[in-house]
Amino acid sequence: MDDDWLEERLNNYGQAYRIKRRLYKERSPFQLVEVVETYDWGVMLLLDGAVQTTEKDQFIYHEMLTHPTLLLHPDPKRILIIGGGDGGILRQCLKHPIEEAYLVEIDEFVVNICKRFLPSIAGGAFKDKRTKLLIADGFTFLETNEQKFDVIIVDSTDPVGEAEKLFSQEFFQLAYKALGNEGIFVTQSGSLFYQPQLIRNVYQKLSSLFPKLALVLVPVPTYPGVIWTATLASKIYDPLTIESEEWMKRAKARGLETKYWSPNLQFFPSDFPLLKRILGEGNAFAPETS
Amino acid sequence: MDDDWLEERLNNYGQAYRIKRRLYKERSPFQLVEVVETYDWGVMLLLDGAVQTTEKDQFIYHEMLTHPTLLLHPDPKRILIIGGGDGGILRQCLKHPIEEAYLVEIDEFVVNICKRFLPSIAGGAFKDKRTKLLIADGFTFLETNEQKFDVIIVDSTDPVGEAEKLFSQEFFQLAYKALGNEGIFVTQSGSLFYQPQLIRNVYQKLSSLFPKLALVLVPVPTYPGVIWTATLASKIYDPLTIESEEWMKRAKARGLETKYWSPNLQFFPSDFPLLKRILGEGNAFAPETS
Repeated sequence: MDDDWLEERLNNYGQAYRIKRRLYKERSPFQLVEVVETYDWGVMLLLDGAVQTTEKDQFIYHEMLTHPTLLLHPDPKRILIIGGGDGGILRQCLKHPIEEAYLVEIDEFVVNICKRFLPSIAGGAFKDKRTKLLIADGFTFLETNEQKFDVIIVDSTDPVGEAEKLFSQEFFQLAYKALGNEGIFVTQSGSLFYQPQLIRNVYQKLSSLFPKLALVLVPVPTYPGVIWTATLASKIYDPLTIESEEWMKRAKARGLETKYWSPNLQFFPSDFPLLKRILGEGNAFAPETS
Repeated sequence: MDDDWLEERLNNYGQAYRIKRRLYKERSPFQLVEVVETYDWGVMLLLDGAVQTTEKDQFIYHEMLTHPTLLLHPDPKRILIIGGGDGGILRQCLKHPIEEAYLVEIDEFVVNICKRFLPSIAGGAFKDKRTKLLIADGFTFLETNEQKFDVIIVDSTDPVGEAEKLFSQEFFQLAYKALGNEGIFVTQSGSLFYQPQLIRNVYQKLSSLFPKLALVLVPVPTYPGVIWTATLASKIYDPLTIESEEWMKRAKARGLETKYWSPNLQFFPSDFPLLKRILGEGNAFAPETS
């Protein structure tokens, strides 16, 4: 098995990683859970054959879903994370002076497998006193929830199977309702190059509820097409009008140190032609005509 | 052949594209030249098995190697392109009010194959009166050159085989000498995630010659790791100190319309932690330790 490769396919595109060892493969009640050790990215988690995270590149995704969102809020105390059973976003949230972080993950297998094979991702986050881990369906949790959160972060798989409802208008409404007056919501919203319809769809749904939106630029070396998006939706604060100096000031005030995040490369700029075409349902990619 | 896939490997990583048709495959005096039609990206050119360009995503790479460079120069009249036999950079250069563009491509096969299978990339550029096409080795061309250029753009393959010398200190010195007093040089410098040593190497060599450097953020959906870099090196003008409004003013003054380029997403910011680690020979990717 010196030349064992693992391939992920997304429609007409595929990525392959040469792997050292296959560490785990088991079907949970919700999905096929696999762990392998790759040459390039160390230990890697896959769900239903799709790469979720790796120990070497995880910090980019987890920082970028967390820090632009939490820094936009002047005083985030209560955080809700839906999905994210690896604990990576939880760990980043706990770097801020928050009071409580609820992590609502549907699949207990994922939490346990990550604790076992990818302990570096969550670090001590699961043991932190501010952490409330609930094994539950995020949609159902919000349907019965009566608390208010300052920030809600959705770290889900692609919108198929159980995760599909996490991209529905109904879910976004539940999230809106569960947020305080200054509340901010963020969700991963797909690959810039391979899922433009998903990006457009999420953007349109969220813009019917929230007045301020921005697309977070989330590079994930191990996701198809690498440049992924998260859509940030905010009740009051507009992320695109804040200057770099102000972002840095906020980060410093919270003692935040990052390995990837910096204020000048966090959002797709509003004058970015490619994104305008994607959001406007134009043909973002076509041969030149003139 | 309904399920024909083409795979490119880079060490321990691979990308695969489902293809409709294999259009051409022939060995030139320099390399294996292949053309296929993919489902996602239309017609695609490969050299020695490495994806070079596709008709649907080519505009990003060609705009980003051209426009930041030519807009930085106040009055670029004479341009030298080394490599770039598909004519994509040539086409972008001709959008500026230049007087002459020399294209020095080593492999005539590439020019002819692109004219035949990828005519949309160059458009009318090869027929433009300002174009001087030379089939020659770019290194040798510069060794004997006595002209001065305002801008030199190197659009080469990876630094193996014939292309290796295009990344040498000697070549960079020849380019420096061939540039006027306000001259600007730019070269593709590899994948952010898979070739950090190449980025560092090019940056170090160029910074020994040019006082102002910047790394251009060049996303290419069909290159391994997607986020590629170009290193821009300038004798006088500092790209990182120019405001967005000024970039837009210059683009408008030249009547430049772009499909990808915009002033707010062209360079890696100088405070970008990941790049600092890459350039500083630190370990850019590692499991979390604290």
